Amino acid sequence: MLKWLEDHLLQLNLVDTMNQPEGFTRLGYSNEENQSIAAFEKIAKELGLEIKRDQAGNVIARWIGASEDLPAVAVGSHLDTVVSGGGYDGTAGVLCALGAVKQLKDEGYQPTHPIEVIVFRSEESARFGISTIGSKAMAGLLDLQIGSVKDSSGISIREAVATLGFNWDEFSKAERKKEELKCFLELHIEQGTVLEENQKDYGIVDGVACPIRLKVKVFGLAGHTGTSPMNGRRDALVAVAPLISYVSETATKLSEENSTPVVATVSTMEVKPNAINVIPGYVEVGIDIRSVEDSLKKIVEQSIREKCNELERLYHVSIEIEKLVDNPSVFLDERIQKQLKKVVSEMGSSYLMMNSGAGHDVMNMAKKWPSGLIFIPCKDGLSHHPAEHASLEDMRLGVNIIAGFLKKEAGGLNEKSTSGSSRA
Amino acid sequence: MLKWLEDHLLQLNLVDTMNQPEGFTRLGYSNEENQSIAAFEKIAKELGLEIKRDQAGNVIARWIGASEDLPAVAVGSHLDTVVSGGGYDGTAGVLCALGAVKQLKDEGYQPTHPIEVIVFRSEESARFGISTIGSKAMAGLLDLQIGSVKDSSGISIREAVATLGFNWDEFSKAERKKEELKCFLELHIEQGTVLEENQKDYGIVDGVACPIRLKVKVFGLAGHTGTSPMNGRRDALVAVAPLISYVSETATKLSEENSTPVVATVSTMEVKPNAINVIPGYVEVGIDIRSVEDSLKKIVEQSIREKCNELERLYHVSIEIEKLVDNPSVFLDERIQKQLKKVVSEMGSSYLMMNSGAGHDVMNMAKKWPSGLIFIPCKDGLSHHPAEHASLEDMRLGVNIIAGFLKKEAGGLNEKSTSGSSRA
Repeated sequence: MLKWLEDHLLQLNLVDTMNQPEGFTRLGYSNEENQSIAAFEKIAKELGLEIKRDQAGNVIARWIGASEDLPAVAVGSHLDTVVSGGGYDGTAGVLCALGAVKQLKDEGYQPTHPIEVIVFRSEESARFGISTIGSKAMAGLLDLQIGSVKDSSGISIREAVATLGFNWDEFSKAERKKEELKCFLELHIEQGTVLEENQKDYGIVDGVACPIRLKVKVFGLAGHTGTSPMNGRRDALVAVAPLISYVSETATKLSEENSTPVVATVSTMEVKPNAINVIPGYVEVGIDIRSVEDSLKKIVEQSIREKCNELERLYHVSIEIEKLVDNPSVFLDERIQKQLKKVVSEMGSSYLMMNSGAGHDVMNMAKKWPSGLIFIPCKDGLSHHPAEHASLEDMRLGVNIIAGFLKKEAGGLNEKSTSGSSRA
Repeated sequence: MLKWLEDHLLQLNLVDTMNQPEGFTRLGYSNEENQSIAAFEKIAKELGLEIKRDQAGNVIARWIGASEDLPAVAVGSHLDTVVSGGGYDGTAGVLCALGAVKQLKDEGYQPTHPIEVIVFRSEESARFGISTIGSKAMAGLLDLQIGSVKDSSGISIREAVATLGFNWDEFSKAERKKEELKCFLELHIEQGTVLEENQKDYGIVDGVACPIRLKVKVFGLAGHTGTSPMNGRRDALVAVAPLISYVSETATKLSEENSTPVVATVSTMEVKPNAINVIPGYVEVGIDIRSVEDSLKKIVEQSIREKCNELERLYHVSIEIEKLVDNPSVFLDERIQKQLKKVVSEMGSSYLMMNSGAGHDVMNMAKKWPSGLIFIPCKDGLSHHPAEHASLEDMRLGVNIIAGFLKKEAGGLNEKSTSGSSRA
């Protein structure tokens, strides 16, 4: 299985070696994401799964169950990445799901419920500033108005999907009925150091911290850097600089004062005109705020608004704040959590109950179907980075927990006494 | 003359109205700069001047003198702009020079020395981060190694000039011999508010403040915004934010403490990967420092270096500083200044002796030929901005001072007693 995982990890990542100093760039609805999905389909077909693409481009690879009228047990993740990201974020979950199918097939297992391995499109917000587009479509949560949102090259979501042969107006048809799925499980790398530090095999996730995202626009006055005296300036970059420090300090302080952490990051910035001899006349920054405790996110947001009022007065600029995203945090299904604990105990492995600081496709699926999220460790917590790494051993453990979960949930021929619980 | 100035200002700017909310974008060695130069050539031909393009693409429009063996009296500026810049920076100087030729021709004046109106290429550093390429070539100051410097689209200077039919390897042939020119005068909008505040017609410039420019590269660690606790981060943007404030504060304080002002600006910034859910792992900022007092620029530079050392320790990042430019300030010819004062006095106009915070083509010409720089007022000191404005009346005064200067320096038929001073 280790060799199988290694080979198919490379295939899904479209590379010969995972040592890629420039990282992996497969933006949502790009040709690169398409190529990775094609690699997935090839592997799934080799495993005997039936492939279906939905109207949003999500791929569903189905293992026909003994009772095809029963709802499917689904497991999945995504294959798109941020710019210069890692080869495990999303990909590890898809790979381990395929590995679990392979392992169960090798055992001669035949499920009662159908089993599905799902690859969701465009999970990362790196391209359009909007995350989990594919799983939103499948769960019926997609706001079709976002079709006009553009990437940094000026290509809208509507145009991007059309380039790949999809029709944005048909995306709502990707929604699946409640009765089609029994439950959904996602496996993902932790993207943090909690499992490593606690030396646990798995994290079983309770809550997913969903972000508030703000765009702060600072309107100053451009002018010549050489001829504008210091004291008359309305430099938009000088005005926004204290906000960058403030956002970091505010989240740090709140995390120290509360049992639940909150994180906040000024992650994007655009300076105009961005010329060496022109005073910045306009600056736009993007801020990402997360906590499973929604009230802490709102405190950070409010603090930012007050700070911006102060900066407007101090630096003679005007500031507009646009709220891009305000997603309440999501709590996952308790029965699925119990089932996962049982699987881990039976395997003799260890786990930790934890929250997720990152959003995942599962948060959309959880709004319609009983859903669970498993973390496996990743080296030094590094993610969205070329050096992102999960060991083959940890991914084999990932295969084991998914396989164990599928057997319990999907029932089947080489299992005793599970058909009862599989209908629980 | 006002109508002539108005019409030809529009022609040089390639527009029907100066009200352009998006401003003017004619980057150096672009098709847009080319079009503006073609408009210049058309006007110059209509005035009876002889057109010559040199190997660097500079255009020399020559009024044949009565004694063609005498060195030419030259006046000129540039037609390129920054991105979304104004229609007067450079263009006003070219327009007033043409206007002076028209006025003198209308008077029936015939110069003894040849007179030249010169348009220099690529004065602004907006495209390549390197300013005054054309005048550097003419004055023999060009470092041909900069040919490999690229613009933000990855096009090198060498490639850009080739697209327009020029050969970078021939640029050094644009250098002119000392004996070809008697002197050089540039007229430019002030790009500041000193003339407006003091209600003077002209600024006669003594010193030109040339910049020190630094590129500061901050190496932090990218990571997921949701899963990275605040206290373990190495956020490159959080690390550099205090530097932005510090640069502004340091220049402000030094300007208050010294009789000569110094200005310093963090004017450019690039954040990587610049994605809403990724902590900034790398940030690069460009800093522009100017004063006619070179020692003050060096104090600012040294303060920045010390601050960066402190930020490295505080934020666990590493910082590299690259010095892009270090040009000592230039002082202009005293005889030319006296000549300009004399012209202004005879016209009954008013002037102020001042320094220039911005670099101009004249600073290169001054290294080889006796040179002068005249400022005319511009509204609210606004420059490098769509709303940049100089009044037609002030440009007519610009025409008058250039015409008066040319008559004194070039001698000629409808002038009395100036042939002596013209050879001084």
